[in-house]
Amino acid sequence: MKIYVFGLREDEIEPLNQWKAANTDVDVEYTADILTEDTANLAKGADGVVALQTQPYSRKALEIIHDLGISKFSVRNVGLDGFNFKDLNDFGFTLTYVPVYSPNAIAEHASFLVGRLLRRVPEFDKKFQSGNFKWFPTIGTEISGKTVGVIGTGHIGSVFARIMKFGYGANVIAYDIDPNPALENLGIYVDTLDELLEKSDIISIHTPLAPKDHHMLDANAIAKMKNGVYLINCARGGLLDNQALIDGLDSGKIAGAGLDVLENENGIFQNEFDSIEAVDDEVFQNLAHRDNVIITPHTAFYTERAVHNMIFDSMNDNKAMISGKKAKNIVDTHK
Amino acid sequence: MKIYVFGLREDEIEPLNQWKAANTDVDVEYTADILTEDTANLAKGADGVVALQTQPYSRKALEIIHDLGISKFSVRNVGLDGFNFKDLNDFGFTLTYVPVYSPNAIAEHASFLVGRLLRRVPEFDKKFQSGNFKWFPTIGTEISGKTVGVIGTGHIGSVFARIMKFGYGANVIAYDIDPNPALENLGIYVDTLDELLEKSDIISIHTPLAPKDHHMLDANAIAKMKNGVYLINCARGGLLDNQALIDGLDSGKIAGAGLDVLENENGIFQNEFDSIEAVDDEVFQNLAHRDNVIITPHTAFYTERAVHNMIFDSMNDNKAMISGKKAKNIVDTHK
Ligand SMILES: NC(=O)c1ccc[n+]([C@@H]2O[C@H](COP(=O)([O-])OP(=O)(O)OC[C@H]3O[C@@H](n4cnc5c(N)ncnc54)[C@H](O)[C@@H]3O)[C@@H](O)[C@H]2O)c1
Ligand SMILES: NC(=O)c1ccc[n+]([C@@H]2O[C@H](COP(=O)([O-])OP(=O)(O)OC[C@H]3O[C@@H](n4cnc5c(N)ncnc54)[C@H](O)[C@@H]3O)[C@@H](O)[C@H]2O)c1
Repeated sequence: MKIYVFGLREDEIEPLNQWKAANTDVDVEYTADILTEDTANLAKGADGVVALQTQPYSRKALEIIHDLGISKFSVRNVGLDGFNFKDLNDFGFTLTYVPVYSPNAIAEHASFLVGRLLRRVPEFDKKFQSGNFKWFPTIGTEISGKTVGVIGTGHIGSVFARIMKFGYGANVIAYDIDPNPALENLGIYVDTLDELLEKSDIISIHTPLAPKDHHMLDANAIAKMKNGVYLINCARGGLLDNQALIDGLDSGKIAGAGLDVLENENGIFQNEFDSIEAVDDEVFQNLAHRDNVIITPHTAFYTERAVHNMIFDSMNDNKAMISGKKAKNIVDTHK
Repeated sequence: MKIYVFGLREDEIEPLNQWKAANTDVDVEYTADILTEDTANLAKGADGVVALQTQPYSRKALEIIHDLGISKFSVRNVGLDGFNFKDLNDFGFTLTYVPVYSPNAIAEHASFLVGRLLRRVPEFDKKFQSGNFKWFPTIGTEISGKTVGVIGTGHIGSVFARIMKFGYGANVIAYDIDPNPALENLGIYVDTLDELLEKSDIISIHTPLAPKDHHMLDANAIAKMKNGVYLINCARGGLLDNQALIDGLDSGKIAGAGLDVLENENGIFQNEFDSIEAVDDEVFQNLAHRDNVIITPHTAFYTERAVHNMIFDSMNDNKAMISGKKAKNIVDTHK
């Protein structure tokens, strides 16, 4: 049995070697190149393909893979925007993905964003870099005792809520359209989003971006928040209205924001520019220079454990499909 | 009854006003100036004095306060290095201090230092500032699942241990010469410091600096640690041997360090230089430019709650002494 891996990054080599060591019955080959019509033929002789890329999967590349007799396709991530499902169905692919690789990675990152904002790290960093080692007047605040509102308590939000409540001793409240049974006994759920918005000193959003939830946090929602609220978004950029955020920061309504995602992040994140100024995006320019805004370029997920799980879960599912066993995370490409 | 307050910073005005509002029977006056022989007379007419300064309290200044008929002296902090106890005793002062103002402030700061190191924030910050928004290859690690060793589990260490264990899901182990009964049921204590050093992925020290504990973490101790260990020191600089730290960082034995205190911080922290380079200190120069070392200038304590407690506890004790009641934190200046 042979699996061919496309787009393997350097940091994925070690976990892939670990997987190979645990699966000596599988022949694994890989390339750093992503899957395109120029590289597709590398998979010749393989029974399955595992890929990861930010560029779309072209119909032509998928056709070549199909012509090589391969129908088992696994991606190492959660996002499926790069696929035209019709292509997959036309060529009879079965697709698996990795919906959850490490909720802790994102929840921990969100908690550190809270810490960096409350302790005014960007300001302290600037002072430090300029040779100013005075603490006054850059006074911070503590998480302990604050009311932290968690919107969406699935894989990630539930871990974040636990960190805040059981670690930092925050008063955690949560809102979810479908409350998580594992958290029900904590008594943290409020009945409406409005109640959460009104009561929280710190708000962190962890919902998917359903079309109806586009700009869930808009000017109207922000108006309901406490003065001096801190906002964290490590979920999806489109959940937060950028202009409303900027207005809230300008008025002081919002004391700070930690953003791992931006509505317009495509074309910015995962790219390299000559300087921050070279990024041709007004919203980004407005936010990137504020001391009370911390932007991280969609790095929340990026830990060794997450990468390990992305490799292991995708390889396991690909192997399962080839062996005629039940794969864990099959995508319904027909819906 | 009147209390005179020396060296009041701007960020202390609001908590002082809160205290005044809650103690309308006390007349409170203050100055931003610290207590010196030139300012001591400002306390004329007061029954007690509350002070805070990094410069020594001069015998002459104390003599003037004594000559004004004042014997109740309270400082708003824990450090008593600025006093010659003989002066206090000669003039018959009773001194109170604030031994604990907010363990959470320091414990939370320590936890954020862990986060910033594990997620390689200094490297990401540099990338960001240069216009590079790629996450690869700056991969981070998670606290969850790591073994975190806590040396000293008093007021601060116990909070830090709880954050790591109950918040982040770390495997916490602890060493204390006098284990904290409140933590005994957690089963986290190991019997020897060596065992903690050998097993921990992350080590945070929270002991006082007793003379016998000078350089508790020296080359010998560091040699026992895991390769790739992270060290956090938010306690006292003298607990950690700088040269051993530098050697450990150079060899890669130590993967990173978060330092809120430095053995030689006096003359550096709380000062302002023209640039980092203007700091005439080899150790500081060596450490300040490393991407895997984060130095914060003794800011761990500096939160609104801590400042509030420093004001309230010192004012309460001063008032208690004046009223002939039992003060909470009297210093034994005769030992
Ligand atoms: N920044 C990153 O690196 C990164 C990595 C992975 C995932 N994410 C994002 O994190 C978010 C959460 O992921 P997850 O794995 O925890 O998802 P999940 O499906 O496990 O949980 C989502 C939760 O949100 C709730 N929810 C849905 N719509 C809601 C609404 N309108 N109001 C309140 N609650 C609502 C759901 O009931 C569910 O409990 C997603 O947006 C995902 O794309 C970000
Ligand atoms: N960075 C800051 O801003 C800041 C602010 C306040 C205090 N501190 C420092 O934090 C440290 C801890 O303060 P705390 O209030 O928690 O003290 P604490 O007295 O409450 O606790 C100290 C603990 O260390 C233990 N201990 C003493 N010597 C030990 C040894 N050799 N090995 C193992 N354990 C030992 C004690 O038994 C005690 O449990 C002190 O060094 C203090 O100066 C730093």
